[in-house]
Amino acid sequence: MRTQVAIIGAGPSGLLLGALLHKAGIANVIIERQSPDYVLGRIRAGILEQTTVDAMVEAGVGAGVGREGIVHQHLDLVFKNQHHAIDLHRLTGGKVVTAYGQTEVTRDLMEARTASGQTTVYQAGNVSVHDFDGLHPQVRFEANGQSQVLDCDFIAGCDGFHGVCRASVPKNAIHEFEKVYPFGWLGVLSDTPPVSPHAIIYANSERGFALCSMRSMTRSRYYVQCALTDPVDAWSDARFWTELKSRLDPATAERLVTGPSIEKSIAPLRSFVAEPMRFGRLFLAGDAAHIVPPTGAKGLNLAASDVRMLSQALGEFYTEKSEAGIDGYSERALRRVWRAERFSWWMTSLLHRFPDTEGFGQRVQEAELEYLVQSQAASTALAENYVGLPLQG
Amino acid sequence: MRTQVAIIGAGPSGLLLGALLHKAGIANVIIERQSPDYVLGRIRAGILEQTTVDAMVEAGVGAGVGREGIVHQHLDLVFKNQHHAIDLHRLTGGKVVTAYGQTEVTRDLMEARTASGQTTVYQAGNVSVHDFDGLHPQVRFEANGQSQVLDCDFIAGCDGFHGVCRASVPKNAIHEFEKVYPFGWLGVLSDTPPVSPHAIIYANSERGFALCSMRSMTRSRYYVQCALTDPVDAWSDARFWTELKSRLDPATAERLVTGPSIEKSIAPLRSFVAEPMRFGRLFLAGDAAHIVPPTGAKGLNLAASDVRMLSQALGEFYTEKSEAGIDGYSERALRRVWRAERFSWWMTSLLHRFPDTEGFGQRVQEAELEYLVQSQAASTALAENYVGLPLQG
Repeated sequence: MRTQVAIIGAGPSGLLLGALLHKAGIANVIIERQSPDYVLGRIRAGILEQTTVDAMVEAGVGAGVGREGIVHQHLDLVFKNQHHAIDLHRLTGGKVVTAYGQTEVTRDLMEARTASGQTTVYQAGNVSVHDFDGLHPQVRFEANGQSQVLDCDFIAGCDGFHGVCRASVPKNAIHEFEKVYPFGWLGVLSDTPPVSPHAIIYANSERGFALCSMRSMTRSRYYVQCALTDPVDAWSDARFWTELKSRLDPATAERLVTGPSIEKSIAPLRSFVAEPMRFGRLFLAGDAAHIVPPTGAKGLNLAASDVRMLSQALGEFYTEKSEAGIDGYSERALRRVWRAERFSWWMTSLLHRFPDTEGFGQRVQEAELEYLVQSQAASTALAENYVGLPLQG
Repeated sequence: MRTQVAIIGAGPSGLLLGALLHKAGIANVIIERQSPDYVLGRIRAGILEQTTVDAMVEAGVGAGVGREGIVHQHLDLVFKNQHHAIDLHRLTGGKVVTAYGQTEVTRDLMEARTASGQTTVYQAGNVSVHDFDGLHPQVRFEANGQSQVLDCDFIAGCDGFHGVCRASVPKNAIHEFEKVYPFGWLGVLSDTPPVSPHAIIYANSERGFALCSMRSMTRSRYYVQCALTDPVDAWSDARFWTELKSRLDPATAERLVTGPSIEKSIAPLRSFVAEPMRFGRLFLAGDAAHIVPPTGAKGLNLAASDVRMLSQALGEFYTEKSEAGIDGYSERALRRVWRAERFSWWMTSLLHRFPDTEGFGQRVQEAELEYLVQSQAASTALAENYVGLPLQG
């Protein structure tokens, strides 16, 4: 088997890259070790920057988000039992974010890929990447019990934090940066109307962080900061709803509609960046190269901007015979990655209770939140990061 | 002896409070345990917010700063060997800061106090404060070998972090917040022309923080971040200048004029707040209530805004027979204190090397600095804090 670009991973990064390459007339094959249902079953981010929506439109898969995505013109901050709106639309000169679940993004991309007749190999076993330091990289894997070889010009590692691509790079060629946070997020998905259908709510309370988000007008996603050592079983639905309400302002808590959870899990929070993002003819994109804590809603959006930059670079290579784009990909992508890492770390630091900064740290958070909602400049800095900084040259 | 307001401490806070009270027709006596020369010999802050200059003008001591103060319309950030100007004047709609040393502020206030004939007791021994939970507070001290009692309506504790006033409050009536930073500042004063006569320079380098400031057109004040365990003797003048140059951008380093140090010392960095700032008829102001790391140049300015609020509150008490001002002093002052504490902590965190955040933390600093100089909103947030947030009601 042979293609121009072998894409490892059929999550949203790999699928979006495949769609963008297809639009640019570049052949690609996606190799994924899981089944389509497994990939669709992952419950993840749901807030899209305008640049991500634009990338979906550019890839020809903008219909779903255009029809069902719910525009958020503001985000709300709750602290000291008070509710404050940050008007994203006004502060950024008209920019917004759109609530549209990662599951829906993935489904739209899968359907478009199937319709376009491009190849995706699901449930591939023992995937490995080879010879990317030369001109003839290979991907080897097993499918239907057979060993297979995929010859290609380039490999795109869209296979997530635990994927094979980054792990295949010699240790001395890569520099990793990491920060682990001393708490987790307990997330609940429920078929209840969202308490705040037009804005995501971020709450800093004495009991810890809480977040109210949504997947649709009938499906809500809520989180509370919890101890990493908590077993999920310790959190009954009743305990979760009581805890969530205690962290919100009274008016929001009163409006909250509760119901049985349809998914409940605890996730750790991590900041991680691998540098560079290119090794010869292997490129990393999305979670394969970097992780952000979910507080700033940047994970999926960063993956989208990575693959957009990468598809542009590969387009230049094939249509203009120029290597400038692929040579510049890592530096260009990392510039945006570090801005988003900074913002995600800052949002996380601002909104959570940290066990080691009792007292002074908590007062500093409150002072910053009060300043933030009163200063036009500080509100604008939050808003312009939240809707997404411009893609840079 | 009897007065209306007994002020403990003849540093800039106590002297400025005395001048403001005198303008308002309120009698006051200052008790200071050191000599005038000792007080004048302290080498401290030198950047005045406009509100501080305004307070000096209001107190009738604005001539010196008006004549000799050097206006800084911008502040400069150096990182990754590049120099970036933050235009304070443009970003804040015309506000600036003024370089004028604390020694000069103190001298102007001392001279005005002497001219006005108000009483200052220097070299007072065994100063103690009493009965401030009732209507008849007392200050006791020794002068010229004699025990003295000063009866008063109010006591203002302007006696610094190690002073007697805060220490005289019952432990259970006060809540203290503190953060100590894992490094110090090595400061050098030299009779050399400042490398940057129109802007203070803040440098974040791989070797640590550096600061270029000035006292006058012929006297400079420079700092480098150092280990708290360093003995001053380990820093010869030659080593200091070499280290300072290595932390600046090449053009600035080349322009730097070196010379013999006339003062050299290592100071620790600390954030500290005591709440509340009022205990019956005892008020705390300035360093007696709070300490900031010097990075944001807020220490003297916070002291000036405290005593301005306090003089207004006491003015209301004596002229309008209203206790509203003194009842609200602590909350009003603390609101501004915490904003400045937040800003000073942020500036310190952004610009220094932290031993425990190698790697990720350093990249986040660089990403924030790059964002800061490119974003109008983020630059404005820095500028509006640096020139001083408005005094609030």
